[in-house]
Order: sequence, then structure tokens, then C-alpha cells
Amino acid sequence: MSSLQALWSAGSIAVIGATERPGAMGRLPIDYLQKYGYQGFIAPVNPKGGEVLGLPVFPSMASIGRAVDLALVMVPAAAVLDAVTDCARAGTSVCIVMSSGFAETGASGAAAQDALVRIARDHGMRLVGPNCIGAVGGPARVLATFSPVFSSPATPLPDGNIALVSQSGALGFGALSLGIERGVPIGIAVTTGNEADVTAVDVAVQLAADPSVDAVLMYIESLGELGALAGAAESKPIAVVKAGRSEAGARAAASHTGALASADKVVDAALKKAGIARVADIDALLDAGALFATGARMPGSRIGVVTTSGGSGILAADAIEACGMQLAQLGADTIADLTAVVPSYGNATNPVDVTAAVMAEPGLFEKCVDRLAGDLSVDAIVACFAVLVGADVTRIASALGSVRSRTGLPVVAVRTGAASLAPDGAAVLASNGIPVYPTPERAVAALQALHATSKHRDREVIAGPLAPAPEAGASEKQVKTILADAGLPVPSSVLIGSAAAAVDAVSRFDGVAVFKAVVPGLIHKSDAGGVVLGVTAETAAEVFTRLADLGGQVLAERFVRGGVEAIVGITPSALGPVLTVGVGGVLTEIVADAAVRLLPVDEIDVREMIAETALAPMLAGARGAAPADIDALVRAVVRLADCTREWPTGFELDLNPIAVLTDGCWILDAMYFDASTGDQLQQAGGH
Amino acid sequence: MSSLQALWSAGSIAVIGATERPGAMGRLPIDYLQKYGYQGFIAPVNPKGGEVLGLPVFPSMASIGRAVDLALVMVPAAAVLDAVTDCARAGTSVCIVMSSGFAETGASGAAAQDALVRIARDHGMRLVGPNCIGAVGGPARVLATFSPVFSSPATPLPDGNIALVSQSGALGFGALSLGIERGVPIGIAVTTGNEADVTAVDVAVQLAADPSVDAVLMYIESLGELGALAGAAESKPIAVVKAGRSEAGARAAASHTGALASADKVVDAALKKAGIARVADIDALLDAGALFATGARMPGSRIGVVTTSGGSGILAADAIEACGMQLAQLGADTIADLTAVVPSYGNATNPVDVTAAVMAEPGLFEKCVDRLAGDLSVDAIVACFAVLVGADVTRIASALGSVRSRTGLPVVAVRTGAASLAPDGAAVLASNGIPVYPTPERAVAALQALHATSKHRDREVIAGPLAPAPEAGASEKQVKTILADAGLPVPSSVLIGSAAAAVDAVSRFDGVAVFKAVVPGLIHKSDAGGVVLGVTAETAAEVFTRLADLGGQVLAERFVRGGVEAIVGITPSALGPVLTVGVGGVLTEIVADAAVRLLPVDEIDVREMIAETALAPMLAGARGAAPADIDALVRAVVRLADCTREWPTGFELDLNPIAVLTDGCWILDAMYFDASTGDQLQQAGGH
Repeated sequence: MSSLQALWSAGSIAVIGATERPGAMGRLPIDYLQKYGYQGFIAPVNPKGGEVLGLPVFPSMASIGRAVDLALVMVPAAAVLDAVTDCARAGTSVCIVMSSGFAETGASGAAAQDALVRIARDHGMRLVGPNCIGAVGGPARVLATFSPVFSSPATPLPDGNIALVSQSGALGFGALSLGIERGVPIGIAVTTGNEADVTAVDVAVQLAADPSVDAVLMYIESLGELGALAGAAESKPIAVVKAGRSEAGARAAASHTGALASADKVVDAALKKAGIARVADIDALLDAGALFATGARMPGSRIGVVTTSGGSGILAADAIEACGMQLAQLGADTIADLTAVVPSYGNATNPVDVTAAVMAEPGLFEKCVDRLAGDLSVDAIVACFAVLVGADVTRIASALGSVRSRTGLPVVAVRTGAASLAPDGAAVLASNGIPVYPTPERAVAALQALHATSKHRDREVIAGPLAPAPEAGASEKQVKTILADAGLPVPSSVLIGSAAAAVDAVSRFDGVAVFKAVVPGLIHKSDAGGVVLGVTAETAAEVFTRLADLGGQVLAERFVRGGVEAIVGITPSALGPVLTVGVGGVLTEIVADAAVRLLPVDEIDVREMIAETALAPMLAGARGAAPADIDALVRAVVRLADCTREWPTGFELDLNPIAVLTDGCWILDAMYFDASTGDQLQQAGGH
Repeated sequence: MSSLQALWSAGSIAVIGATERPGAMGRLPIDYLQKYGYQGFIAPVNPKGGEVLGLPVFPSMASIGRAVDLALVMVPAAAVLDAVTDCARAGTSVCIVMSSGFAETGASGAAAQDALVRIARDHGMRLVGPNCIGAVGGPARVLATFSPVFSSPATPLPDGNIALVSQSGALGFGALSLGIERGVPIGIAVTTGNEADVTAVDVAVQLAADPSVDAVLMYIESLGELGALAGAAESKPIAVVKAGRSEAGARAAASHTGALASADKVVDAALKKAGIARVADIDALLDAGALFATGARMPGSRIGVVTTSGGSGILAADAIEACGMQLAQLGADTIADLTAVVPSYGNATNPVDVTAAVMAEPGLFEKCVDRLAGDLSVDAIVACFAVLVGADVTRIASALGSVRSRTGLPVVAVRTGAASLAPDGAAVLASNGIPVYPTPERAVAALQALHATSKHRDREVIAGPLAPAPEAGASEKQVKTILADAGLPVPSSVLIGSAAAAVDAVSRFDGVAVFKAVVPGLIHKSDAGGVVLGVTAETAAEVFTRLADLGGQVLAERFVRGGVEAIVGITPSALGPVLTVGVGGVLTEIVADAAVRLLPVDEIDVREMIAETALAPMLAGARGAAPADIDALVRAVVRLADCTREWPTGFELDLNPIAVLTDGCWILDAMYFDASTGDQLQQAGGH
């Protein structure tokens, strides 16, 4: 087994810093392990020796005489290095450092933390933490934590097919206890703290590989490479609360593209691409877990709603539209059948409102749910009953359960009313595979999470020939030559060295050209008067002289008239290169409307990106203008993303504008930057 | 007293359709009234006579021999008109028609409903419903409902200083029961159903006037005139769930302005203007109610966060920023004091993270909350403890309560953990005036609702001279003349009737002019070639002839070069005239970025509107361009809104574009439309 599985499957556990003293942290894990019936070997470790809760204390890890699967380090920060060294030398598989006082305190703490990681890596031991609250659950009944949650007699041992990983210890165990209370079957919870070695993503990947786990819920504050997690998400649903939204945009943007591809947008893009649901808060995380636990999947996004309250139905419809799913368009047969049973003061179309008549006519609700489930346009069902009392629960729950098991459709219930009106309601529904939510909005958000994790698609991204990466400080002409050689649409251009050459160049470009000053370090050369459009034979000599006076070379380029201006860029991120497509030209900053995706992308991705921005109506032809050649732009973007795929990590390319005409598109400006070589931002072109 | 107060203060109640039959709706209100200890007079009414639950049955309202405060009509739809007539003639103050089968079923039902209203109005009786589930609560213990919520022995009588009004019956009573279960002190609940006569707004206004009510929660599907409610919101907080967001944009938009001022945006604008909080769902409504009930107000928006979990603190910060409030910037003294007590692995700046050290050091949390409350930059406090066990609750609750009562600051608690870990927690906190929420996001949303209802400002809107309204079908020239006479900036123009006059006009406008075809019904005259910019003396004759050939008049106008193009419009809505300000010109539809407000507005409003849109960066001067004259635009918009204030209901004015130059602004195009006169949309101008 992977060593990380020790977090929920350890057969032997050592507790370093064990003590009998009531209230001490070093007593709690041993207390919990005994109380919750851990059947493996427990080794309290403390140089003082003696006994703790009836168990003999070992003075050191070495003295145990065998390697243990899991060691909990619960000593003051200053003693942690020795403890970890002791663990590593004794052949421990996984060591959880609960102690605080490391990277979270500053530079010296960070150095101390690095030392822990070095020891662990030297000995092939995995290190969880420091500054975490441990792990609980699994078939082995591992209680490797000092969380006060388990000091309450009301807290049962976690049990179920859902796992929770949290970077935050207190929030993780709090969410676990809330989940247990709400009936969300969380069977394993792991907290990862400072993540010196093991990250929440590492743990989630291992959890997803475990056959006892059907879905993973995560709380994370930082997000590294998602590759392995994306793989895990192919087979099991994963939902994430990602904190730190308010730091979005903190990255200083050296170019337009960077400014638009804000950090939080990139996180969104990365999670979306990986088929991982990003949810709003811990409520939504637990709500998603309750639905994931039923084993339902939901590749489609058309939802049927049955309600006893018109209000709940409208709120459900609002929520469905707001989150980009659809209220299912029922077939005429379905509507006809519903019309026959729904009262005239109700509604026989979606959302189907059976009204309070359901009180007088048992079976009406079930009939409607059943009929709705039989409509092929329905991908999931939301059943709303504002008030559900007494025995009605059992009947409705079993009807919903039967639809769920017969059709495989996800079915969720909304009960905006006190649990005490039908105290068994949630449990009876849950046993039928139907999670219950207090509001339509929360039910729909859970379905959205399920849908997001069910939309896997394996599209082939065609790999064409590579383009060589530009050298650091490459000029506009050099970057454009590389792009043109890769088959990208770049207007012809020529460097000119004299007034005579300027006049020649204009005639070569059919009598009108763009002249640009190519001056290293001149970022906004339009503003500096370094770009002159519509140069003719008459003005060529004078313009050349003026631009040459700016101190660099002068580039003459074929003049492209009009078109819709797009910006296309590639920027680096911790999650891999990010593609930006949006409104370009002078509107770039004003409209600030761009879509981002992690690379690679295919044509469908790029079309989706365009559709998400104001480029879509602009390209479609506003106010009767002829539509622009969207296909040409899509081809260019896909080819660009493809031919740059082996360019150095950290490179940044900014094409702005790309003019999209009614026939074809042209890259008018190109800016290249390679952070990995210490290259400063270069304006390699500019309009 | 207002007759509507009978809904929660009736001294006598009649139940028409009363019956002893178990399970029958007509039995339930009598059952409930008796069970919950109603002390007033109960009159069962049924032509069959006899007894119901020990009370003598009256064959008719007339036979009771006295007027009752409240009558409940619970007979089939066909018998409702007779019952309502009987009530009206007997001098009943308020009649609640619970029966369904009226406007919600179609045209004939709507006609039947109208007949009920006529009877009621003829006799000065107020009519609630039809198709509602009645009202409960108040000091009189009125249980005027058949809701199954009160058939459960677990449901206590509503008690508390918060009132709930819901257009939806089932959702309203469901939310009431959920609120009671969560400890939200809802003392009165009223449902209004089809609102044939009495609306939810009417009821809310009466509730807000009642001294026993400190705040009002509402669920509404339609929203009429808000005037009275806005008045009520001046003194008591009101929060609203408004359903029907997904119907936003359903109104067919005849002009750009109409298209941008979508119905839902108008609702937002109206509620914001009235100081009423619009919240996301029933959870958020109850969450707001719990905070409103404490009597706290929160005019400022700077929040201090204390947390035992770093994760909860980050989530709180995210939520605060996301909803437009601010994480308080603590003073240096505060930070120094906090640094002295917070562990080094915690955080002594906002959000203040006291870490799990709080377990070992009682009093740490209280110390930090206390210090934070002493910082004048803090307008409210969020206290997060993910896991709170046993006796810690009482100590922390009393510390938070002491801060709350000593400083008057709103204080809310976040407890992301099972209630069972400290079963008394919520109650102890509540008794100290501290509402508790499961996630930081929900706590912050409740504070946002409180802030929205605490931001009252009484700004003087200066009323200048009125402009006369244009006549239906007024031409561009006529509309612009009215605007110019009102002091608005309109370029000089002249209608020209000959090629010679065209040449004269150009010279009068300093050699360059705009010529426009003024053709009734020509909406997009730019597209039709009906606008020619930059006409000179040389081209004037030819352009005149071409435009005259389009079949209308030709207008010559001074040519305004460049500037940032804005759109300013006024459109009618059910809530009153709506002002739109946004990006204009050819970008209007592409950027689709406009702010809306209900009229009247003042300068501060208009500046806020500009700041909400992409106009702000455009006017500020993109890419080094000189800033445009925002003040001139603001003056023009305020003057426009003011001078049109007595124009006919239903008028629509669309100024697009207004060119905002570095010095001044100019209304280049004006379109006027008066729906009330059956006027068709006229293009009275156009570029």
C-alpha cells in the first residue's frame, strides 16, 4: 500500500509526547484510540517512561523494537527535529507533526521546517504537517488527533464512503463534526497544515485510489500542480472549497494578459478543466458530499422540479438558471399526463407545482415525480416540499427512492421546514439515496457540483509541429517570423534602413503600410508616437525619419484595415501555462473581458472561451456589420497554443491586437517575455 | 388600529367552512386556536350548524350578531363569493380567503377574484388571498391557518420581535418552522397568496408600524410601488427574498436603455434605494432575521475578525471583500497589543488568528475580541470558533455579549462544528445577543444585510424648473430644443430645406457639420446611411440631396469631435422611472454595461452609477488619454432627471451617445417615446 494510506489504515501508531496528565494534548490521541476501539498496536513514547492509560511507555522510537506505520509528534517545536529524526531512523512510514512554530512563524521557522523535510526524505518517510490536527477514520478506526471534537461523547466514529481533506486543522475537524451531525457519511478526515512534505492534493489522490472512498471533499488554501488530482477526478467526484479569493489579482501583471488572467480565475479554470467542483463554502461542500455519497452521476444539466410550493419552484428555477444549468423542457406527452393529475390552480409544466392539494390527495406527488422521471429530457430531479409532516415522509421517500434506483437519475429533496415536523425525514430519505437540503438554492448548488464532476470528456488535442521559442529580448520581427513559420497569420513586414527603402516598402505593400519604431524597452509605443498607420509613398520618407529618431529600427508592415480586435495571450501560473482570449486593442483594459483556460486546449475550448466574452457579439457583427471570421481566430489560437507547447516554463506571449476580418485574421502585435532567463518585459511589437 | 393588524391582533375570529371532521382543513384553525390558547372569540360558521370542537356553529356570518375582526374563508372556490359577501355585509374587518381556484387558474378565475375584491372594497373590508395559508402569531395568539406545521406537537407558538411576510403560503410556513427551529425569534407570520387586495408590502408596512415588531423578513414574487415600504425601512430593518430572477430581461426592450435596465436590476435598484436588504435565499433571510433581532445597527462596513482557525479567518476575509465590505485596518496600537498576546504561529492583524492555543489558554479569545472592539476602525465583529466544546461556550458567549452590550457593535459568531459538541452553545450565545452561523460566509452575508438596512441617508434632491414633455412623435429637433431650453448641452442645429441652405449651415458651424436624415420610423439611421459626419462646404450640397432622398427632413448640426460616448436613459417600470447610465455609442450593446437607479437621484448617486460601469476607466482616460469632464456629465444627468420629473408616466427617453469631452459634454442623439399615448417608438435623432 502507499505509505500515505497509513493515515487511515495504520496497524501501529506511536504517540511521541504521550502523557497521562488530564487535559494534556499528548494524552488525547491515546484516549481517543482506546475509546473508539482501535485494534492495532499503540506505542506511547516519552523519555520519562512509565505507563499512559494502562499502556507501557517507550523512551524512544528506537526502543519500540519495530517500525510503526504512523507516528504522531506532539512535543514543543524545539524538540520536534529530534523526534522526527527518531521516527525516521526507526523506519516509520508516516510521521504527523502536530506541533506549531514552523513556517507559519517566519523565516527561522521555515528553516526549521525544511530541516524536518530533509530528514524525512533522506529516510523515505512521509511527513504530514507541521501545524496540523492529524487524521481520523477508516476501517482501522485511526484516531490520530487531539481534536476536541472526539472528547464529546456525542461524536460518533466517522463512518461512510466520503473522505475529507483540509489544509486547516480546526476548520477540517469542525467541518467533519458538522458533516457527521448532518448525516453526511464522512468516513475519513485528514488535515495537512503547513504541507511541508505531504499536501492536501497528495492525500486526496491517495484517498481517491482507496476502494472504500467514493468521493473526496477538500478545503485548501494553496493549490499546486493538479495533474494527479485531475486523474483521480476522472473516476471519483471531488469538490473543493478554495480559500484566498480576496488575494485574486495580487500578482503584479506585467502585460495585459497577465492582468486579465487573475490568480483566482486561473484556479477556477484549472479546477474546471480537471472536472473538480469548486463550491462556495463549507455548507456547500458538505451538501455536495451528501449527494456524492449516493453514487449518482449527472452528465446532463436539465433539471425537473416537482414542488408542493409554487415559491420553492420559482426559487429552484432561478437557481438553476443562475448556475448555468437548465430547467428541463418537458415533452408534450409528459405535460399532458401531468395536466391530468395536477390541480388547475397548480402547474403542469416544469417546475411542476402540485400545490397543497398533496395534503388531501396522497400519491399525487409520487405520480408527478414518476412521470417526470420518465421524460428523457430530465437529467435530475429536485423535489421540494416546504412542509413535510409525519407519515408522509416515508411514503414520499420511498417513491423518490424508487425513482432514484429505477432510473439512476440523481434525486434531491428540499425541505424548507423544521426537522421536528418529521423527525425521521432526513434519515428515511437518506436511506433511500435522497439527500435533503433546507433551500432550493442549496439543492441546486449540490447538483451543480455533481454535474461539474460528471462532465468528463477525453478530447484529442492534435499535436502539430513545434515552433522554436524566441530568444530572450527577441524583436517584434523575430517573434513574428517564428509565428509566421508556424503557420500563423502575420502580415508581411520588412525592416527598413533608409528613406528610400521606406518608399520602396510602401509600394511593395500596395501603396499603404504601417511603420513602427522597434525600440527595446518602449512598452506603449503607440502612446509614444512610435506607430504610424496608413503610411503612403508621399509620407513614407518623413515618417521613417521621425521614427528612426526614436533610437531604434523601423519596421514597415502591410496595413490591415478594420476588423474586430482580440487579445490572445499565454502566461505562466503555478498550475501550468494559461491561455487568455478576450476583447483586444484599445478596449482591452476598458472592457477587461477575457476568458482563461489552462493549456492544452482544443477547438471546442476556444469556441467556449470566445462565447464567454464580449468578443462573441463583436465578432457576430454588431448593428448589422458583417460577421467576422471566428473560425480563422479559433484556428489561430489552437495552433498558437499547440506550437508553443514546449516553450520554456515561465514564458509569456501577448498578441494584441489580433484583427479578425470578415475573411481571416491577422496578428498585428506580438510581445514575448521569458521570466526563466531573467528577460525583462520586452515590447517586441505594438500598434 | 389599522384593520390589517387584525391578522395578528384579532379579538374575534370566524371560520367559514368549519367542520368537526378529522383531517378536514375547516377543522384545523379551530383546533389550533384552542390548542395554542387563543383567548378571543371563535365563531365556527357552517350552514349545517351543530358544534365543532365544543363550540356552537353559526349558520352564517350575519347570524353571529356582531362584527368579527377576522374571518377565514375555507370553502370550495365556487362558494367563496357568497362567503365573502356574507363577511363584508356583516362588517368583518379582514377576510382571509384560503381557497384556491382564482387568478392562478387563468382568466375566469381572475374574473372571479376581481368580483371578490369589488365586494370587499364596497364594504371597506380588507381581503387577504385568495390562495394563501393565513397568518399566525402576535400577542393575541392568532392561529388563522390550516398549515400542517401546527399539527406537530413539536411546533411552539411563534414568539419574538421579528415578523415574516410571504407571498407563498407553503414556503412561508415552512420558513417559519425552520426559523423557530433555528431559534430565530419570529413572532408573527402572514402569507398573502394571490394578493388580490392586500399585498405583502401592505402587510410589511403595517408590521413595521407595530411596536412589538423590530424587523420584517419577506418572501415576494412580485413587487409594486415601494414608497410606503421605503418609509418603513427608515425605522426598522427589512430583508427580502425576491423570486423570479430568471424572468429578468423578459420585458421586450424597445430601446437600448430598456434592454439594459433589466427587470431584476430594477428590483435591485429599488430595494437598494429603499434601504431594504435583498438576500440570496431562505437561509440568508433567517440568518438576517437572527441578527436583526438583536437590535444592532451597522452604518459602517469595516469588519474585525477573530478566529481560532486560520482557515475560517481567510474565508471570512474572502466573503467580506466579495460582498463589498472591508476587513478593518487595525490601528498600530491595536496590533501591538494583539501581538503581545497572540502566539507567534498565529496572526495579530485582521483577521486575528488566536489558533488552537485558545484550548490551552482560557481568556485569550476574549482578550482579543475585547481589544478589537476597542479599535475605532471596527464597525462589527465576526468571531469564528470552528470547534467549541463544553464549558468554553459560556465563557466566550459572555465575553462576546459584554462587548456587544458595552460597545453597541454588532457581534456575530461562526461555529463550523456540530451543535452537539456544546449543545447549549447557540442558546447561550443568543441570550447574549450573539447570533451563530455555521460558516463565515453566512455570518458575513447577515452583516451585509444589516449594513444595507443601516445605511439611511436623507439627501436633498434639488428641484429645478421643469421642462415641458415632448409631444408624441416629437422630432429630434423638437426633443433637443426642449432639452436645450432646460439648460442641457445640445449642439446647435438647424433644419435645412435646400442645397444652398446646407452650404450656409456648414459655414455657420465653422466649416464642418453633421447632417442627419429625420425620417419618422427610421430607427437605426446610421445603418441606413442617414447620418453623415464631417460634412464640409464642398460636400454639403451632395450630402443634403442624398439624405433628402430618404424621404424626410434634413438636420444640420455642429460637429462634435471625439470624446467618450455615454448612454443616458430614463425608462418606466412598475417601481417608477428608472435612470440608466452606461457605456454608449457603438459599444452600447457590446459592452452592455450600465448602472440603474430609481429616480430621483442626486450627484452622489450619479457618480456612484458611473463608478459601477466601464465608463469610469474610459472617462478617466485610458492609455494616457486626457481625462474627460465627468463633472459635466454628472451635472447633465442630474439636471435631466430633475427637469423630466413630471413627464407622463410611461415615457422613455434615450440619449445615446452623449459625447463627454475634456471640457463639457454634448447630447448628440435623443429618442423619445410615450407609451401612455400609444406613441410608437420614434427615432427622434441618431448618429
